Amino acid sequence: MNGSDRNIAACLAALREILGSRCSTGQSQRELHARDEGWHLPGLPDAVCFPKTSREVAGIVTLCRRHAVPVIAFGTGSGMEGQINAVQGGISVDLSSLDQILEVNASDMDCWVEAGVRRLSLNTHLRDTGLFFPVDPGADASLGGMAATRASGPNAMRYGTMRDNVLSLEAVLGTGEIITTGTRARKSSAGYDLTRLLIGSEGTLAIITKLCLRLHALPEALRTARLHAPDIQSLLDYAIALMQSGIGLAKLEVMDAVAVKAINLYAGLALEEEPTLLIEFAGNAATIDHEIDFALALAEDFRLPQPVWAASPEARARLWKVRHEVAHAEALLRPGSRSLVTDVCVPISRIALCIAETRADLSAIDLIASTVGHIGDGNFHVSMLIDPESSREIAIAEVAHDRLVERALAMGGTCTGEHGVGLGKKTHLRREMGTGVDLMRAIKQVFDPDLILNPGKIF
Amino acid sequence: MNGSDRNIAACLAALREILGSRCSTGQSQRELHARDEGWHLPGLPDAVCFPKTSREVAGIVTLCRRHAVPVIAFGTGSGMEGQINAVQGGISVDLSSLDQILEVNASDMDCWVEAGVRRLSLNTHLRDTGLFFPVDPGADASLGGMAATRASGPNAMRYGTMRDNVLSLEAVLGTGEIITTGTRARKSSAGYDLTRLLIGSEGTLAIITKLCLRLHALPEALRTARLHAPDIQSLLDYAIALMQSGIGLAKLEVMDAVAVKAINLYAGLALEEEPTLLIEFAGNAATIDHEIDFALALAEDFRLPQPVWAASPEARARLWKVRHEVAHAEALLRPGSRSLVTDVCVPISRIALCIAETRADLSAIDLIASTVGHIGDGNFHVSMLIDPESSREIAIAEVAHDRLVERALAMGGTCTGEHGVGLGKKTHLRREMGTGVDLMRAIKQVFDPDLILNPGKIF
Repeated sequence: MNGSDRNIAACLAALREILGSRCSTGQSQRELHARDEGWHLPGLPDAVCFPKTSREVAGIVTLCRRHAVPVIAFGTGSGMEGQINAVQGGISVDLSSLDQILEVNASDMDCWVEAGVRRLSLNTHLRDTGLFFPVDPGADASLGGMAATRASGPNAMRYGTMRDNVLSLEAVLGTGEIITTGTRARKSSAGYDLTRLLIGSEGTLAIITKLCLRLHALPEALRTARLHAPDIQSLLDYAIALMQSGIGLAKLEVMDAVAVKAINLYAGLALEEEPTLLIEFAGNAATIDHEIDFALALAEDFRLPQPVWAASPEARARLWKVRHEVAHAEALLRPGSRSLVTDVCVPISRIALCIAETRADLSAIDLIASTVGHIGDGNFHVSMLIDPESSREIAIAEVAHDRLVERALAMGGTCTGEHGVGLGKKTHLRREMGTGVDLMRAIKQVFDPDLILNPGKIF
Repeated sequence: MNGSDRNIAACLAALREILGSRCSTGQSQRELHARDEGWHLPGLPDAVCFPKTSREVAGIVTLCRRHAVPVIAFGTGSGMEGQINAVQGGISVDLSSLDQILEVNASDMDCWVEAGVRRLSLNTHLRDTGLFFPVDPGADASLGGMAATRASGPNAMRYGTMRDNVLSLEAVLGTGEIITTGTRARKSSAGYDLTRLLIGSEGTLAIITKLCLRLHALPEALRTARLHAPDIQSLLDYAIALMQSGIGLAKLEVMDAVAVKAINLYAGLALEEEPTLLIEFAGNAATIDHEIDFALALAEDFRLPQPVWAASPEARARLWKVRHEVAHAEALLRPGSRSLVTDVCVPISRIALCIAETRADLSAIDLIASTVGHIGDGNFHVSMLIDPESSREIAIAEVAHDRLVERALAMGGTCTGEHGVGLGKKTHLRREMGTGVDLMRAIKQVFDPDLILNPGKIF
């Protein structure tokens, strides 16, 4: 985008004409929309708009295009890689007022929602249908934001990621045009997969305004166990054997002792501060005991202690709640710090080795670091607590991150399993995809010819 | 592409220099590569090349680009929508010599194969691993061709389509450049989803040369039943109730009496010539009986007769073999005819109504027509037997097809669930996707700036 063409004053005047007070230049709103939960420096937008309809989003994009002003889609700000930071200024488009659940087709197991609907609201709304939307990145994120970053979380092992659970999208291109990328059909071979192209595009190709989501039947029975052992490798080896057995697991998560300690501090718990595996079994009432028996016998083969079972649905919910809040919890280990969180994903048989080599590597650096992993997908996060003012600490953490990405790529993995590229993994993406990045840039030109959508992200 | 720049003689001379006798202009080879199994008119390529490596494919594309000659990727020719018909002449690139299974990573449950490997060869190769590749479009197609058309089949209900079972691709762009679109990681948020963009692009964006496929554990137990009833609606209503119950089904297929009659003729069987449901249960030995009991009780609620069980693995294999060959079988109902096969896919609760309305509509036209359906995905095929020389019959069938597509779109469905657009659904795609088709055209320019790859297909 040619900065010299930018006319922010004229753009703001035109935006106020269509949105009135829903176009805010107040400092506090701008600061609230300047950064996500990651460690990247804030980027202050010139204004924040609160559209109520897709048509209003299209109007905002059209005006911004006319005045060469960047447009940054904002869901809830719970991302990790600075995707919503307005690093070149411009207009933050807060989609939280697009909050309608438009239709639930229970017998087709799908629904249409607006992009600002949050995942927990949707699941509350679905409570009486026996259905739910399974993708659970931890934060109570907006579904549009989850699609934009191709989010996943512990349930991905059984239900897939946003890639697998979106049937169609409505979105506003960089030209202001509104498109719909698909239908409610479960499968389709109708031309190029525009739905999947927008999923994971981090607001750089289009602003997602509506989503048609695939829903799933709530499992009849869920049982959750916690296993801890002094040695993380034996837990990982057991987890991999369990996965390869093909039994009905819903979640398979690992945390190291540092992460458990943070959770204890944060939630006032007294969990054993050892490496811990969380396993959730899902199935029907008649079969789940059979699978649990198998898992227990296997745990004995690995000489692991007996698991601690969540005694009630409430206890289960509490356990997952603290697991989901581990990112917030870790901050307590070093007040004032922020987390530089890595996100590699490797083929499942390599995850134990990748974690072991990474822990050995990290033991040489002088930062508090924890490890949590979605073992079932081969995805794990190392969280390094840095002083955001210390360029020395940032450099140490970034170099350790680089080495981790090299290690993951050498094992056939990716630099990001679920957080996206954003600001923090642009060089990693180039290393992973090579000239594929040039194709991505050229595709962006097709959707956003004036390059106004979320500039400075991904590449 | 500018036809006046085309220099086929110079191109052929150059191709012969690198491929020798593996560049053939023999009439019989050209005819073997002129059409698929669909009803569309053949398109004779100027020559057929048989590369052995990705690098040779890249060399062919580079030469064809220099001489402005079309390039059409050819797998096994088992498609239905004329995707491999060389409607503008050019070079057919037969990938059957790219037939190596490069690596099987059993503990990661994935493998790398060359694009010409056929699905049955791969599954034979995997026999001792306890793993298999589930996508089963019927024909023993090449895996590259299956990815190019986003193929699926009966197993898609449980295991998804090619979209869900490809981790990464190697492909040659229209510039001759070789790219790799991803890694072996189970999930990734690393930039735009180039893998999914190539899947279903029907050879118009790139020629797929290698695939990294996701493998699945063979189910411990499989049981297959056949239910027949005079009334197709009661079978469909039962099938939908079964799906919505969430029990562990692998396949759920319907055939009308015409399709069963064709199968009897073709395979010398004596199946009852009534609407028929094929159900395959999959699970572990301890739980499958429980699910079957549930399904049987539900069948009684729908007043359906007792199912006929496949008594052995061989009987089960025979049943699926004849189901898979129904397209060939139908030709026997009218010797000399070809099938105009439709492929709509609708939300699952609408499939019974969509089939009913379609059968009522077809009863008014004077063509033999059968219906088979992958009920579990909402996808069904009507096969209308036409005299390929009769423009009157083609017109009748095409108008009925148009009405069926209108009906499916009105129900929230798609014009093609698994066969792709090719030559036969270009106007349907425009109706379904609107201006999305313009985006697809612009994306094609990115991958294939001189528009040499499979011209005349999709749009």
